Amino acid sequence: MTTTTRSACLALDALDPLRPLRDEFALPPGVIYLDGNSLGALPKATAARVQQVVTEEWGIGLIRSWNTAGWIDLAQRIGNKIAPLVGAGENELIAADATSVNLFKVLSTAIALQRLDAPARRVIVSERSNFPTDLYIAETLAREHGLTLTLIDADELPAHLNDELAVLLLTHVNYRTGRMFDMAEVTRAAHAAGALVVWDLAHSAGAVPVHLTRDHADFAVGCGYKYLNGGPGAPAFVWAHPRHTERMDREQLRQPLSGWLGHAAPFEFTTGYRPALGIQRFVCGTPNLLSMAALECGIDVFRRAEAHGGIGALRHKSLALSSLFIELVEARCAGYGLTLVTPRELAHRGSQASFAHLDGTRASGGYPIMQALIARGVIGDFRAPDLLRFGFTPLYTTYADVWDAAEHLTAVLESGEWKAARFNQRAAVT
Amino acid sequence: MTTTTRSACLALDALDPLRPLRDEFALPPGVIYLDGNSLGALPKATAARVQQVVTEEWGIGLIRSWNTAGWIDLAQRIGNKIAPLVGAGENELIAADATSVNLFKVLSTAIALQRLDAPARRVIVSERSNFPTDLYIAETLAREHGLTLTLIDADELPAHLNDELAVLLLTHVNYRTGRMFDMAEVTRAAHAAGALVVWDLAHSAGAVPVHLTRDHADFAVGCGYKYLNGGPGAPAFVWAHPRHTERMDREQLRQPLSGWLGHAAPFEFTTGYRPALGIQRFVCGTPNLLSMAALECGIDVFRRAEAHGGIGALRHKSLALSSLFIELVEARCAGYGLTLVTPRELAHRGSQASFAHLDGTRASGGYPIMQALIARGVIGDFRAPDLLRFGFTPLYTTYADVWDAAEHLTAVLESGEWKAARFNQRAAVT
Repeated sequence: MTTTTRSACLALDALDPLRPLRDEFALPPGVIYLDGNSLGALPKATAARVQQVVTEEWGIGLIRSWNTAGWIDLAQRIGNKIAPLVGAGENELIAADATSVNLFKVLSTAIALQRLDAPARRVIVSERSNFPTDLYIAETLAREHGLTLTLIDADELPAHLNDELAVLLLTHVNYRTGRMFDMAEVTRAAHAAGALVVWDLAHSAGAVPVHLTRDHADFAVGCGYKYLNGGPGAPAFVWAHPRHTERMDREQLRQPLSGWLGHAAPFEFTTGYRPALGIQRFVCGTPNLLSMAALECGIDVFRRAEAHGGIGALRHKSLALSSLFIELVEARCAGYGLTLVTPRELAHRGSQASFAHLDGTRASGGYPIMQALIARGVIGDFRAPDLLRFGFTPLYTTYADVWDAAEHLTAVLESGEWKAARFNQRAAVT
Repeated sequence: MTTTTRSACLALDALDPLRPLRDEFALPPGVIYLDGNSLGALPKATAARVQQVVTEEWGIGLIRSWNTAGWIDLAQRIGNKIAPLVGAGENELIAADATSVNLFKVLSTAIALQRLDAPARRVIVSERSNFPTDLYIAETLAREHGLTLTLIDADELPAHLNDELAVLLLTHVNYRTGRMFDMAEVTRAAHAAGALVVWDLAHSAGAVPVHLTRDHADFAVGCGYKYLNGGPGAPAFVWAHPRHTERMDREQLRQPLSGWLGHAAPFEFTTGYRPALGIQRFVCGTPNLLSMAALECGIDVFRRAEAHGGIGALRHKSLALSSLFIELVEARCAGYGLTLVTPRELAHRGSQASFAHLDGTRASGGYPIMQALIARGVIGDFRAPDLLRFGFTPLYTTYADVWDAAEHLTAVLESGEWKAARFNQRAAVT
């Protein structure tokens, strides 16, 4: 049993230094949103800003806005606002394209660098439960370059840090379990073995402290529409350590998506490709300005969060929320087939809590249980084959939300309402 | 001398069957916009639709909108609306990513198909004055695959259709000169020589009739933010002939950007990549929903244009506008160093008119002349080293606009006002 009460949760909310930030979001009434790890909520500032870009910058400014509204610098301006959230320096990180596309750029680059420096290394290693897009991109690149992609479980990693390893590709926080790697330690061990490391920060940026430069990471990509609240399909971001971009500058190395906006002088319209300096070479085509503008609004909330304790306070609250949820669910839902798959140890946990569901009569009730919860206004998500995922976004999730979500989950399980046929009909997106 | 008068232009506007469509656009007062070939104007419907996506679909629907608002089908729905504009069939074309990124996908695929079928063919041919991003992507892919990229002038093409040619990469309408290739004839000749053809439709889609399927094209990409009026940096599109996608289905062939949304079952989250059927395999990551929604509004104008004569009427008016502009400029601006570089023959002309500028004292006055025109509210653009570009978008450009633009150009040249220092200061984007 837990001794926590709803009153205690309300008291925690009253004391929460981050509480004012919830008012920056347009959260729908009657909803407890625990899916900010999939699509972040809408900042209140976004609608007006996007409208301004549409009606003023595009509608009135038209082509002139590339100069007058600063469109040409927007991707780098946003990159410079994301950079402090992941421990990157000024002009080292840029917003562009989708995460999958950016991963293709940096993984290709890491492979190319190893082909120059250590051609005998022929293996890419990733985690079997990594997000599929990372595995699919790696599989195709491995095939194209005659390398082997080896998929392992996280605890097998030490055995694979050997003289065959070219590139280690890991997602910092696992999208299913919420388990977090120690970036400093893994990077150090991989470098000691002679490998490069590509980090996917999709479930880290804006959610947990990340120190790319301090931890000597090689390359990173991340997502704009999860914890950064940039809107559905927001542009992603890409980072490379300055030691790599400086080398690429010196040796005129390119990434494969050598589009015109990654050229050193795009408006000279010359026939030969000459990569731009630094991270700018990782840009390809023209950025989606409307989506970029929305992304900037999402990131600006984090800048205002600095006055409320910043990423330290966010991390503290995130862990408090997930710990509270785990405590409440385990105390109340015992005997209903839920098993925590997220690490209990705080240092190994991202900003979510996932439970596998199995019962005696079905393979998993995960899908219909989540549908029943969503029908009650508690929005998490389901990941096949058996996971209920709950993301905790400390910018806008309250302790009382967590209490209420656990109450609803308890009621769904106790009542058995999830067994109703309507909760078992699969939608296109699960 | 020309016998045309402004009254005659107004009379043409009064008779123009497409005239009602201009009212669908929010054009700024005091501006004659002749740069829709670079960034199309804002449809009036777009602002409200984008706002709806932001506040309702994202803000209230949140993650549920993937199902309830049809986000998961949006890229294909838009593709199916673009398809008739370029002579493609249902579910053969899809909106995604940037043009450069899509070009990487299809050029890689064309190279891979030729590697299977005709590995002795080692040359990619493109036009020297093709848009740089096409050349840069081709240069990198040629280097990666050990092929040669040969850049030629258009009139040298027949000599290069030989048994070394693997892939011919052409932009249908040249971005500088507005010169248009005969897609049917070039494709037939290239196929007769054993080559595949990739067409870039950036300056064609929505501007000139295109018949991809009828003309047996192999692959095509195109831009959403020019004549399709999808907004700054709108998603691009990609098409492959069904004979290629059906073969890719049979042989489980992939394109290199094998992201999760191009997987046969993305929500099964399996570790191995299995390409989706048909054109869906050319999708990579999550689409930018805000930018996609704006793109759909731009394309919907063309659907309403069907009632006003459709692409046939658009083509007729486009040529009438460019011909009128050429006639007026040549009649009035003789002796000021302008030389038409756009073909006079209508069958070889896209939807723009470009003039090179040279005078006795400078290399080119193209840049400051365009700046002086923009200061007068006539917006075209400059392309280094010497081109003044004027695009004609028959959806919203009137004959009177063309008259007035020619008047302003004449005044700029006669007065010499373009020689003022303020027009010679280069902006970031030229």
